[in-house]
Amino acid sequence: MTVTHSPTDIAELDRPRLDRLFRPASVAVVGASTAPGKLGSVMLSAVANGGTGVRTAYGINSRSEGDGIHPSLRTATEFHGGPADLAVLCISAAATPAALREAAECGVGGAVICSGGFAEVGGDGVALQQELAAIVADTGIRLLGPNTSGFFRPGTTTVSFVPTVRHITSGPVAVVAASGGMNHALSFLLSEQGVGVGFGVGLGNSVDITTVDALEYLRTDPSITAIALHIESVDDGAALLSAVRAVTTDKPVVALVVGRSDVSAFSASHTGALATSWRTTRALLAEAGAVVVDSEQQLVDAVAALSRTRLPAAAAPGIGVITAQAGPGLLVLDQLLAHQVRVPALTESTREQLSRLLPPMTFQENPVDTGRPGATFDAVLSATAADPGIDALAIYALAEPDAVDLTVALRESGVRDQLPVVLGTGGPHGVIGEITSAAATLDVPALAGPTALATAVRALVSDSRARYLRTAADTESTSPPGGSGERADLPTIVLPADEAAAKDALDALAISTPPRRVCGDRAAAHRALSELPLPVAVKILDAAVLHKTEIGGVHLNIRTAVELDSALDALDCIGAPAYLVESMAAGGVDLFLGVRRDPVFGPIVVAGLGGTAAEAIGDVTIRSHRVTPAGAAAMLDDLQCAALLNGWRGGPVLDRDEFGRIAVALARFLAAHPAIGDIEINPLRLTATGLLALDAVVVAAQDRVEGELS
Amino acid sequence: MTVTHSPTDIAELDRPRLDRLFRPASVAVVGASTAPGKLGSVMLSAVANGGTGVRTAYGINSRSEGDGIHPSLRTATEFHGGPADLAVLCISAAATPAALREAAECGVGGAVICSGGFAEVGGDGVALQQELAAIVADTGIRLLGPNTSGFFRPGTTTVSFVPTVRHITSGPVAVVAASGGMNHALSFLLSEQGVGVGFGVGLGNSVDITTVDALEYLRTDPSITAIALHIESVDDGAALLSAVRAVTTDKPVVALVVGRSDVSAFSASHTGALATSWRTTRALLAEAGAVVVDSEQQLVDAVAALSRTRLPAAAAPGIGVITAQAGPGLLVLDQLLAHQVRVPALTESTREQLSRLLPPMTFQENPVDTGRPGATFDAVLSATAADPGIDALAIYALAEPDAVDLTVALRESGVRDQLPVVLGTGGPHGVIGEITSAAATLDVPALAGPTALATAVRALVSDSRARYLRTAADTESTSPPGGSGERADLPTIVLPADEAAAKDALDALAISTPPRRVCGDRAAAHRALSELPLPVAVKILDAAVLHKTEIGGVHLNIRTAVELDSALDALDCIGAPAYLVESMAAGGVDLFLGVRRDPVFGPIVVAGLGGTAAEAIGDVTIRSHRVTPAGAAAMLDDLQCAALLNGWRGGPVLDRDEFGRIAVALARFLAAHPAIGDIEINPLRLTATGLLALDAVVVAAQDRVEGELS
Repeated sequence: MTVTHSPTDIAELDRPRLDRLFRPASVAVVGASTAPGKLGSVMLSAVANGGTGVRTAYGINSRSEGDGIHPSLRTATEFHGGPADLAVLCISAAATPAALREAAECGVGGAVICSGGFAEVGGDGVALQQELAAIVADTGIRLLGPNTSGFFRPGTTTVSFVPTVRHITSGPVAVVAASGGMNHALSFLLSEQGVGVGFGVGLGNSVDITTVDALEYLRTDPSITAIALHIESVDDGAALLSAVRAVTTDKPVVALVVGRSDVSAFSASHTGALATSWRTTRALLAEAGAVVVDSEQQLVDAVAALSRTRLPAAAAPGIGVITAQAGPGLLVLDQLLAHQVRVPALTESTREQLSRLLPPMTFQENPVDTGRPGATFDAVLSATAADPGIDALAIYALAEPDAVDLTVALRESGVRDQLPVVLGTGGPHGVIGEITSAAATLDVPALAGPTALATAVRALVSDSRARYLRTAADTESTSPPGGSGERADLPTIVLPADEAAAKDALDALAISTPPRRVCGDRAAAHRALSELPLPVAVKILDAAVLHKTEIGGVHLNIRTAVELDSALDALDCIGAPAYLVESMAAGGVDLFLGVRRDPVFGPIVVAGLGGTAAEAIGDVTIRSHRVTPAGAAAMLDDLQCAALLNGWRGGPVLDRDEFGRIAVALARFLAAHPAIGDIEINPLRLTATGLLALDAVVVAAQDRVEGELS
Repeated sequence: MTVTHSPTDIAELDRPRLDRLFRPASVAVVGASTAPGKLGSVMLSAVANGGTGVRTAYGINSRSEGDGIHPSLRTATEFHGGPADLAVLCISAAATPAALREAAECGVGGAVICSGGFAEVGGDGVALQQELAAIVADTGIRLLGPNTSGFFRPGTTTVSFVPTVRHITSGPVAVVAASGGMNHALSFLLSEQGVGVGFGVGLGNSVDITTVDALEYLRTDPSITAIALHIESVDDGAALLSAVRAVTTDKPVVALVVGRSDVSAFSASHTGALATSWRTTRALLAEAGAVVVDSEQQLVDAVAALSRTRLPAAAAPGIGVITAQAGPGLLVLDQLLAHQVRVPALTESTREQLSRLLPPMTFQENPVDTGRPGATFDAVLSATAADPGIDALAIYALAEPDAVDLTVALRESGVRDQLPVVLGTGGPHGVIGEITSAAATLDVPALAGPTALATAVRALVSDSRARYLRTAADTESTSPPGGSGERADLPTIVLPADEAAAKDALDALAISTPPRRVCGDRAAAHRALSELPLPVAVKILDAAVLHKTEIGGVHLNIRTAVELDSALDALDCIGAPAYLVESMAAGGVDLFLGVRRDPVFGPIVVAGLGGTAAEAIGDVTIRSHRVTPAGAAAMLDDLQCAALLNGWRGGPVLDRDEFGRIAVALARFLAAHPAIGDIEINPLRLTATGLLALDAVVVAAQDRVEGELS
């Protein structure tokens, strides 16, 4: 139903035709009439009066010719001595395919289809949408929609039937939304908060132009410094991640993903696509370099900052927090620390300088609390910015024009020449608007409150960190996983694989497993008992059994021959074809680590606390198979239970690098073996001497149960 | 350091004197001068020009007499023929106690102390603050601060040195903030988002007037319909919860609690108080009836709704979602469902009505997606509101004045006469401002975006649900826990208690435990093995040992005499004074349930997943000892792991009522036994046949380790 672009198509983006669609000099609105209030008329008027970019706009209507209305696209093309760059189709779904074909035949560059009634309604609508896809494939016309309210470049081009769009202010942010409604909602918010929009598009049913096309198209648009992405579903995961990786090298992307709850019924009615897995999509977008947010408010705050400034790539940038009011400052600090942003102690020398600038009763560590700001405010900014541990400044100060002019202090301090600066403030709309505009001239984003400031800083840090972790990824991906020299090192495995075969493969990947013996009979089991460190676990060995414990196939703490015989009796009762006798590990913290094939994104790495609770809680961390050792080493720190891995109550401390190495080895192994669907190590026990895979299951690709991870 | 009020003081609130402070007709600013720019001068000018309520304002300065400046409070009192209602002290900390005493002696009703330099700086500051407390106790003068920028009633009274305060618009919300900075930051946000502020106060160091006083004072203020609370620390937990319970009976309270991260160093420097436990404070405020939010943005959205409308008390109100744009509607739905808000299916009859009102391609379940709204919009609102399952409407529509006038549609539908309605919208500032004002006249709050709308609806539901769960609490609390007839039913326990004694107490509270025998010698242990269902666990029985497993004091899966002897040998080696032999339970989901004495709030109930992981993850649920069976039955649904309790992967389903009964029994037991510090059941196993306490520890009050729960 969707036109598929190969990676080559994406690289060789059809920019001229996309430019005719997105930067049209001439626009024909099909379905316009002279009757006011109708959708087509509203659209024509919006297009004609929507900016300096459109030089010619006219309507097409077979039944109501009139001023600027032509009976057909063909006659209009003749009349105007050439085709329009863009045709906007505001007609019924049933009439749309014919009109689209006519537009293509007339030489129109691109079309926007506003109408609904396609895949999202099922039945005949699906067939109509297929017709559109066929025409696009056939003729090469570029298509936005159907089922979208259009796009706009404030001041230049308006293709939207929402009349208030003319109030959206121009700015450096592009909005790429799954739906027209969200494009408008986000653009209004960005406009009202002083950020401004350079380009806004709602993709609708995405028959031709997808998120990937929009990202690639905007990558080289010099008027855009940051992209706000709204995602409801993902069709081609690999293409999306590849586009995000490419774009975020040049400019930041902030993503809001819908689908935390089961909203699939409503979602399908909306665009005809099923919601994708929320957790996986968010995790992989973040790994690819996007800043992932939880709400459209956070999205606005994040792009407000990232459209003005960006931190260099770093593992953990240090933030200097300066506050003129301690209460809001405390809230900023609380939110930064809760999200693992580093607010490092200042050096002795910085603190000494600050002590000369500030009254003695203020807090002069980090945060630096100035008390009511005065003449030394700019010097406080400079001193903090000069501290060697500080990579960016977060400043909160209520607008108190009689105490200090924040933007003058910012300018005179010169700090913006040294590092990124984000300002949070509060006050009356007019005053805040003036501060926001003045700060923008210094490329300092101004946020409307302590949480907004913290969200903006978190976005800067997250963007910086993702690029840092990805740098290694890009270097490594020059030799594709499992390819060339690497592949020779990887063990092979015969499917179906039982636990022993799975663990042999882990051993070959240098993932530690407990000492064990595969025993075909009782005599072998008794020999194993005498040879292995005690106690041992005795388990059924059967590749067909995935959940051994649940059928009584696992007997623990066996130390004596009597105990062993009674365990073997029980295993014989459930028809064990062979036994696995294995030394039991010391206590520790149980994790799980799995590599799986996601239907949208391909091979992924998933980890969390061991057992089944982690997925019930949703406390899992996910990466793509492209994850680097550094990226994988950091992934467990996403978990809420990360404290358990740092010596919780005297327990063992995780060697992050060891975990990263294991995760990457497993991911490469999966990527190199298309026959394997899943590999799950559960538990992977964190012990005082390292990580130990206590159980492992390898599932063939065709046996995989879809949708286990939600 | 703080003047302590008994519960009687709170009930018999000193309203006349508080009124003189918070509604002064005459104000003296001590430390004012004729020199512009100084804090005292700024304050005097703000007070004199800050509203209609202050009829007389003058300055006091011994060194710079002049126009409206008197040399001392005494001379001013003589000159004006009586004392000022309020003295605002803008002088050094060192000079403040004498000035406060002079004010009290002159008959001034209340004082605001702006200066810092008291408890928050330590050392001499602590002594100065104690002096202030002594003067208040001595003279009865009421005191706001020190270390606050003051308070305001927009249009009536301004006692704040922030000059932009005059732009704060009047409205129905009161802000009670720990600090002056947050009072201003929140009030500006409320003002700019069209909600408006009726009263705003920053409490500062709270020597006299605390959050509790402010809540009680505002409870009966008819101009205030909702209270926004900002909390950095809690001094008297019981008094705070009692005040929140009382106030929320009459008007909603929304609370933002700082301290999720360890911000104690900065926090102490700020108000001189240590941050309280964030999780406990939030949970108990919510139980008492407050709506607890995560950011100041959510706080604004929540009070925007609750200051205009409130749902009747209900366990799970049904929300009808109506959206003119499906994309934002999907985001609203996603957020509501993620926070357990019920969006019920509409009846057949409602759907039939909607199908006559809407084009066939829109989603007509719940959400109801209208597509671009038109003339039937008001009828769609009425039809949805009339559905018997719907208790409130959440509407999202971009401002499209040419398509539909939202406020006219709202008015003509008449839905606001039937149920609470919350509107989310987007568009240019001017248009949104008009919609917000017009909607306010219908008591319909207007929110600026899909997430803001969802937050507002969540607040209505949370407020309704808290009152529903509390109704039972208030009924029950007429007989205090452990008091009168109830107490006779409670078992007694001798401390120190070993596991057997602890479990006997649980048995007496009708909390199930496994069959067991206390065995003083081997013969008794062997008898127990022959009598109890197998397998058994054999444990050390020693009240002095809290962590049996960690010292090898627990042996599981014992079935034979040989196994028993080897276990007893091991227990003898670690000096077991006696043995506990106990039947092992069937598998299931392990929870923990504890009752503890919180240093701030007194006895609390804490529960989560069993083991130690829950507290590392922070996935715990907390209630006060006043929790009702209904409240306790619902508490596990707070947990992220709640899915594990509903038959996860074929496992058992929790009987919520049984859990509620157990939690309440344990809480009442703790409340009735002051000698007990903690009771922990860990694990409390959820099995197919009910809940079973597998291990229990009772700790004497004096042995309790403080700060285990953070």
